[in-house]
Amino acid sequence: MADTDPLDVADLRDRVQKALGEFIAGQTAALDAIADELGPVGERISEFLLDGGKRLRPAYCYWGWRGAGGADTDEVVAAASSLELLHACALIHDDVMDGSDTRRGRPAVHRAFAALHRGEGWLGDPEGFGRSAAILIGDLCLIWADRMLNGSGLPADVLHRGAATYDEMRVELMAGQYLDVVEQAIGGRGVDRAMRVALYKTAKYTIERPLHLGGVLAGAGPELLAAYTAYGIPLGQAFQLRDDVLGVFGDPSETGKPAGDDLREGKRTVLVAMALDRAEPDDAAVVRRHLGDPHLDGAGVDRLRAVIDGTGALAEVESLIGRLTEQALAGLSSAQVDDAAAAVLESLATAATARTG
Amino acid sequence: MADTDPLDVADLRDRVQKALGEFIAGQTAALDAIADELGPVGERISEFLLDGGKRLRPAYCYWGWRGAGGADTDEVVAAASSLELLHACALIHDDVMDGSDTRRGRPAVHRAFAALHRGEGWLGDPEGFGRSAAILIGDLCLIWADRMLNGSGLPADVLHRGAATYDEMRVELMAGQYLDVVEQAIGGRGVDRAMRVALYKTAKYTIERPLHLGGVLAGAGPELLAAYTAYGIPLGQAFQLRDDVLGVFGDPSETGKPAGDDLREGKRTVLVAMALDRAEPDDAAVVRRHLGDPHLDGAGVDRLRAVIDGTGALAEVESLIGRLTEQALAGLSSAQVDDAAAAVLESLATAATARTG
Repeated sequence: MADTDPLDVADLRDRVQKALGEFIAGQTAALDAIADELGPVGERISEFLLDGGKRLRPAYCYWGWRGAGGADTDEVVAAASSLELLHACALIHDDVMDGSDTRRGRPAVHRAFAALHRGEGWLGDPEGFGRSAAILIGDLCLIWADRMLNGSGLPADVLHRGAATYDEMRVELMAGQYLDVVEQAIGGRGVDRAMRVALYKTAKYTIERPLHLGGVLAGAGPELLAAYTAYGIPLGQAFQLRDDVLGVFGDPSETGKPAGDDLREGKRTVLVAMALDRAEPDDAAVVRRHLGDPHLDGAGVDRLRAVIDGTGALAEVESLIGRLTEQALAGLSSAQVDDAAAAVLESLATAATARTG
Repeated sequence: MADTDPLDVADLRDRVQKALGEFIAGQTAALDAIADELGPVGERISEFLLDGGKRLRPAYCYWGWRGAGGADTDEVVAAASSLELLHACALIHDDVMDGSDTRRGRPAVHRAFAALHRGEGWLGDPEGFGRSAAILIGDLCLIWADRMLNGSGLPADVLHRGAATYDEMRVELMAGQYLDVVEQAIGGRGVDRAMRVALYKTAKYTIERPLHLGGVLAGAGPELLAAYTAYGIPLGQAFQLRDDVLGVFGDPSETGKPAGDDLREGKRTVLVAMALDRAEPDDAAVVRRHLGDPHLDGAGVDRLRAVIDGTGALAEVESLIGRLTEQALAGLSSAQVDDAAAAVLESLATAATARTG
């Protein structure tokens, strides 16, 4: 396998940023033409989309295309960048559902619009207004994602070829989100179920399907798509497990979320399910009692962290992340992926699983 | 203009029903294959989509196509039917935003899922669970709408030709919804602004854009699209005004909503704006005091109805509905619309504005 050139990854990130910036500027102008009151909608979406980010899904889509022999064009970069808008919809709606305060170190969209309502001294409940605005803004991002994909400049027959994969990815995302909400509501029922949520909510949606979309757009055959699955599913699961670890042990200055946010939200992650499986009864009772307490303070977070670490669940999850990443790389090396693409996919595996934010 | 054959309208409604039924059955099976827990999601969407309804948007899309000389095929019926799924997203999310209890005579989706949560004795807040489920189900309907359109069997180049119009329609819908939410929050600022909300939220989205979509898919030129606008915008405004009247004076057995629901929700409609414009100070104070009171009872509804009627606003709105409908029909007769299509569009104008539910 060729040496990885990290410049490829950084360069693509810049091009995604540029494509998103241009697209959003055009759409924001169209909103402003409808009514001045839509100003804050466009501004907030711009801010949300353009403040950096890992751009993992566009990267997987782009390299799925390249790996299938597709040429490097601005059109495919624009098409791949549209996945960031889809992801924005998922995050904005997720924050409404979880009642989260912050996202990427800023107020969540629903909180920002509640603040707008309060600042203007409008009638009714500011939080209700914020929720309504965020629901509509999430919908708008979902629609803009289509617009950006369909308006990317890729030919009609190429886009049509990708439509089923694109739609399947989006359905799986929403199905995974629903399963996640149900899992929280039933209070979690073990590691296997938490892994299934991670499969749909993250593994397929973040890695496998973006690779497939790029591949299908470039005309990839079933063998290559199977290799993308062999790489994407374990890596996607590792990606979600890394998220679980960061949600409990992450540094707020890197994650953009308060320390131990997943504990306060009561998330039934694989990490938590493993800790509950392995904990002595007294420790398990501590976890069950405090998990989901919105007022959990720093000391409470530290206590739960100590229990989760003490059960060995943290070490077990870290080891699982390592094994899944190896499995993903093995899946990749067995495949007929273009050399340059394979090298980048190898380096992206590290970006997805060894990250700290 | 040829005589209208009302069978055309009823027959299309049956075909839309069949297309939706088949599409949803396939998608629901795909959800069930992911996880049993998704059963209630598919069931609720089926129930929501298949319990009848006026099917106005598919009708406008279909006749927009026929009016441009497009042939009658099952593919175009499937494409047009997808607008019902888009509309389902708008209604499901709207009910979350308004906190509505019922829709089409049944519990709103968020209420149905709150009841599921309660029935299962799950953890956490049932209403919060219901809201989360309804946000995701609305998202899913928005995605399924695309799937149904893209999978309708229309050729790739035809679909690609329609994509910009389709996306514009959806953006205008969400923009209109946001303007509506802002209008309620600022407490309304007169008839002109309420008319602008109606323009984006309803007139363009319900009539003009579905006609355009059908027309563009069939390859219509700018003159025909302009005629569709001349018909669609005034008719769509009349449609919204009829909705405003029904929201205050409608019969619950026909509207599927509690009597005076718009008053309880505090909707700042054109009807209410006109009543406030025309009311004596004492009467205006009564309206302002009770509008948006969630506990407004039957006697309160009757009192507000009497004020709105007494100001002459009801008669003024009825007269405006009549004038706008005439204007729409004049717009139609000036155009190069296929005769059969023109006859049906004329009869649809009555269906949109003289309805009682």
